[in-house]
Amino acid sequence: MPPTIDADRLWSSLMELAAIGATTRGGVCRLAGSDEDRRGRDLFVTWCTGAGLEVRVDGMGNLFGRRAGTDRDRPPVMIGSHLDSQPTGGRFDGAYGVMAALEVVRALDDAGVTTVAPVEIVSWTNEEGARFPPAMVSSGVFAGAFTAEWARAQTDPDGVTLGDELDRIGYTGPAPVGRPVGAYVEAHIEQGPILEAEGTTIGVVTGVQGVRWYDVDVPGREGHAGSTPMDRRRDALVAAAGVIATLPELAAAHGPDARATVGVVTAHPASRNTIPGRVTFTADLRHPDTAVLEKMESALRERVAAVGGTVTDVWQSPPVDFDAGVVHAVRRSAAAAGLSHRDIVSGAGHDACYLATVCPTGMIFVPCRDGLSHNEAEFAESEWCAAGARVLLGVTLELAGEASAPEDVG
Amino acid sequence: MPPTIDADRLWSSLMELAAIGATTRGGVCRLAGSDEDRRGRDLFVTWCTGAGLEVRVDGMGNLFGRRAGTDRDRPPVMIGSHLDSQPTGGRFDGAYGVMAALEVVRALDDAGVTTVAPVEIVSWTNEEGARFPPAMVSSGVFAGAFTAEWARAQTDPDGVTLGDELDRIGYTGPAPVGRPVGAYVEAHIEQGPILEAEGTTIGVVTGVQGVRWYDVDVPGREGHAGSTPMDRRRDALVAAAGVIATLPELAAAHGPDARATVGVVTAHPASRNTIPGRVTFTADLRHPDTAVLEKMESALRERVAAVGGTVTDVWQSPPVDFDAGVVHAVRRSAAAAGLSHRDIVSGAGHDACYLATVCPTGMIFVPCRDGLSHNEAEFAESEWCAAGARVLLGVTLELAGEASAPEDVG
Repeated sequence: MPPTIDADRLWSSLMELAAIGATTRGGVCRLAGSDEDRRGRDLFVTWCTGAGLEVRVDGMGNLFGRRAGTDRDRPPVMIGSHLDSQPTGGRFDGAYGVMAALEVVRALDDAGVTTVAPVEIVSWTNEEGARFPPAMVSSGVFAGAFTAEWARAQTDPDGVTLGDELDRIGYTGPAPVGRPVGAYVEAHIEQGPILEAEGTTIGVVTGVQGVRWYDVDVPGREGHAGSTPMDRRRDALVAAAGVIATLPELAAAHGPDARATVGVVTAHPASRNTIPGRVTFTADLRHPDTAVLEKMESALRERVAAVGGTVTDVWQSPPVDFDAGVVHAVRRSAAAAGLSHRDIVSGAGHDACYLATVCPTGMIFVPCRDGLSHNEAEFAESEWCAAGARVLLGVTLELAGEASAPEDVG
Repeated sequence: MPPTIDADRLWSSLMELAAIGATTRGGVCRLAGSDEDRRGRDLFVTWCTGAGLEVRVDGMGNLFGRRAGTDRDRPPVMIGSHLDSQPTGGRFDGAYGVMAALEVVRALDDAGVTTVAPVEIVSWTNEEGARFPPAMVSSGVFAGAFTAEWARAQTDPDGVTLGDELDRIGYTGPAPVGRPVGAYVEAHIEQGPILEAEGTTIGVVTGVQGVRWYDVDVPGREGHAGSTPMDRRRDALVAAAGVIATLPELAAAHGPDARATVGVVTAHPASRNTIPGRVTFTADLRHPDTAVLEKMESALRERVAAVGGTVTDVWQSPPVDFDAGVVHAVRRSAAAAGLSHRDIVSGAGHDACYLATVCPTGMIFVPCRDGLSHNEAEFAESEWCAAGARVLLGVTLELAGEASAPEDVG
């Protein structure tokens, strides 16, 4: 019998994990380095040990549960995600990818399947960056983007370092951070509304959007709201609103994958009867293609310049293209499982972005209700969770290689 | 010789007064009820007494300097404005109207002119409302819009009442608040850019715009700036910006006297990478004609409703039409003095608004540089100040009636 995902077992693991740090509104608060993080890790380690996995912890607290393959020289196929959460996070963001990986290993065990390459479940430390910015820091160290010293020295708002908290909860391990990986596959909720709205079960993630953040400053001239005629005004807010109102059109002009968002706006001096003399706002532009992202930036700069404003670069993250081989494997696995699927680009960052710089990498998305995430109401149906695990199982078998089918073993 | 305004004397009075509460940036801080307010009042009283005026203080601290007329039964023609300022106010707002009135009386004295009706210079307490809201409160009590008890009980941010401060600085007077007035004329800087821009010296104020204040609430749906496609968004800020950006067009559609201003805007949850789920903003609509103002309100409500938002009434002040006779007198006086003039509607409120409810009332505007007011850089040329005083002198003579020209006296 080929290995099969046990949907109820997966759901039950997810819910047992979600009880650790559970919030009254149905969400999870399991901040990196907290006691809840420790309890979540402890439970995960118990499960790994129970499944006969060799557990290792590296210097960033990244947790690995290794299932041996027949070829000791092959680097592992890694599958997983993260166990930490936002302060008012949901039960699925991160946890789902780790529990789906655990279910894959359990399914392999049940079916007596041995792989050629080792399979490792991984839980990356502090993916959220909610308590210790920046996000995805430990997969970043693993991939060589940051040093472990720098990452461990990052502080929470109380000045406590991530390293000290990992020491405190007993999860600073002896293993060096970073080593060869054969492939990395991460299952995750979409954190957006596309799959659910289309009734598609699996998102074959082809990459991650590039992101550029800007601060925009639009000047005007303060004046009395009563005594200044309309044709003598330089109203900074009217000017800024003209730019903001046309953002959807700016995005649409650059295709369906483009995103443009203003999240914060402030008018000065913020008096009800004074014409704003200055308006500042943030801009967040995203696209999977750097060339298009650059065109979007030019369009934004042009519009802001047209009203006399300035655009300042704040931060940027280049687009990530996942490995074509892994992406194809995900697509084939979804098709083989008879699951509806579509290609999709991730709008949010994931540990997979850093892994993609060191090994063939891919991701599997499952729907989440109303596209909600980073929200206590975050929800994914059990059947969606099981479907994603089925795809992960198929991809893992393809990438790690099946050494012995159960039939051969008997 | 007919009475004539002494431009230098007027300027010198203005500058001497401006030294009380002078700020380092060239403005004035003379908040109602403060020690600076007392010193400003003391100086004004000295000048009134020096001009032989009978000084009276009422229960709101309103200050009157009375120059007798030949007919003791005629109610006085009142001319003046206010001596309190904004915290970072200018040297002309309010002070100019009181000093212009003082100069008129001095000019009458110099020329030995007696009027039929008494002429009273008035300085209204706490016109600005900057320390003790609301604005124009003491002319409001004088006109019966509020009780003195209520007005005196209004507090500053430290919880001190206006009444206690008037007691402390010695300006709670024995006179009842309110009595018959023959006419009221107030000279003031325009506080807008129209006169200066047109090169016109005198604004014949025909009335004061009606003002309506609203709070607008536009709903949306929070979402991730990366994972939510543009066509699945309900971006509250894009919706709100669409309304704000078209405000100039809304105003223009209602003629050159219409004003529409959004001074304060807030996007929630105010996160750079979250689509705003709610936006609130203020709206300030003005027009001299209530019927038009109502049409403007309907247009605003329609636009806000079109994006699913709601409009809440916050406050309103109906338009004021000044007395046709007084307005004509101002126009005639400007023409007789050979001064360029035009009809104008005040965009800001003034004590004249309340006086207009109890007696024939008018106002005279003079230009102010760049339309700046409520600003330490506020400035009016000496010649503009003198021109306004000349018009005020002519109007005062017309309204109070000339009992004896100097020729007759001699």
